[in-house]
Amino acid sequence: MDTRERLIESTRELLWERGYVGTSPKAIQARSGAGQGSMYHHFHGKPDLALAAISRSAEELRDRAEAAFTSSGTVSERVAAYLRREREALKGCPVGRLTQDPDVMADPDLRAPIEETFAWLTGRLAGLLAEGRTSGELHAGLDPAATATALVAVLQGGYVLARAAGSAEVYAQAVDGALGLLACHARQEPSRPA
Amino acid sequence: MDTRERLIESTRELLWERGYVGTSPKAIQARSGAGQGSMYHHFHGKPDLALAAISRSAEELRDRAEAAFTSSGTVSERVAAYLRREREALKGCPVGRLTQDPDVMADPDLRAPIEETFAWLTGRLAGLLAEGRTSGELHAGLDPAATATALVAVLQGGYVLARAAGSAEVYAQAVDGALGLLACHARQEPSRPA
Repeated sequence: MDTRERLIESTRELLWERGYVGTSPKAIQARSGAGQGSMYHHFHGKPDLALAAISRSAEELRDRAEAAFTSSGTVSERVAAYLRREREALKGCPVGRLTQDPDVMADPDLRAPIEETFAWLTGRLAGLLAEGRTSGELHAGLDPAATATALVAVLQGGYVLARAAGSAEVYAQAVDGALGLLACHARQEPSRPA
Repeated sequence: MDTRERLIESTRELLWERGYVGTSPKAIQARSGAGQGSMYHHFHGKPDLALAAISRSAEELRDRAEAAFTSSGTVSERVAAYLRREREALKGCPVGRLTQDPDVMADPDLRAPIEETFAWLTGRLAGLLAEGRTSGELHAGLDPAATATALVAVLQGGYVLARAAGSAEVYAQAVDGALGLLACHARQEPSRPA
């Protein structure tokens, strides 16, 4: 990995672990093994480097979601595949956790990729649910946009609850609960938890 | 308000706005108007003061939830009252946002009130859903524990999405989606969104 790449990856890790406020240029240099001169050769400063790191985390989030959304199966199965995709629940979401960082939220450039990512994710999931409604797989009464927002919120809130409890089980339980609720909207007799 | 009280309230505000890592003893003194000597007379230091502040925010969260849970109406109406209770969506949850603070999570004393609060909240909501299932208001197939976890996650994730979008509307939409999903589990013909 070249120095620029090491700087971006180290910043991504530190943002995930410590947040923006808790990530100093010094810590980035220590983690990446890059000197101060090298860091400022590649990036204008912490915001510029953070933007590259956030943009890459956002891109990964989209790619992984898209892989689940375009997997095989019914709409319900693809939504379940997305919700159940393996995640490091106790580490939190590398993108969502940044919404709790006041300095990130106050900077329009840094907030933009976060806003775009969740808008894309919710819209993509709403489109999938609408597809299921059109095909008759899901009830006509299901509101795709509101349901999609609720499902994305379950994931983001699942991280919060898992961290609060110190247990990834809680994240899995939130997902189970959401899929149980969604199952009721399938037009076939819903598969109910045993 | 006496000095001790002003110190606690100022710390609560700062934790809500800036998080634990972003809140310095100096900022607490400036906000509260208390001197350094006075602060250390009342509290041993930032962790001690933060514990008092977090415990009070947790207590308020419980009191408000309990008020909604014991309001009049069916189980579905009381759950809806809780989910729709007015919140400062763009400020985030004063308790939940602390799960993103690595220094809070690393300190068992500071994490304890956060863990207890969400365990209580999820358990209380699960009890309410179980009550609705026993009375026949909700379908027998509804899993109270998983559903309760999903609903609390929707609120916590709703804050994340609202902050990402810079819009409290997104929070309301997540709640609408969750209530739409829950409505399907009511034994009467579910009230579907128009």
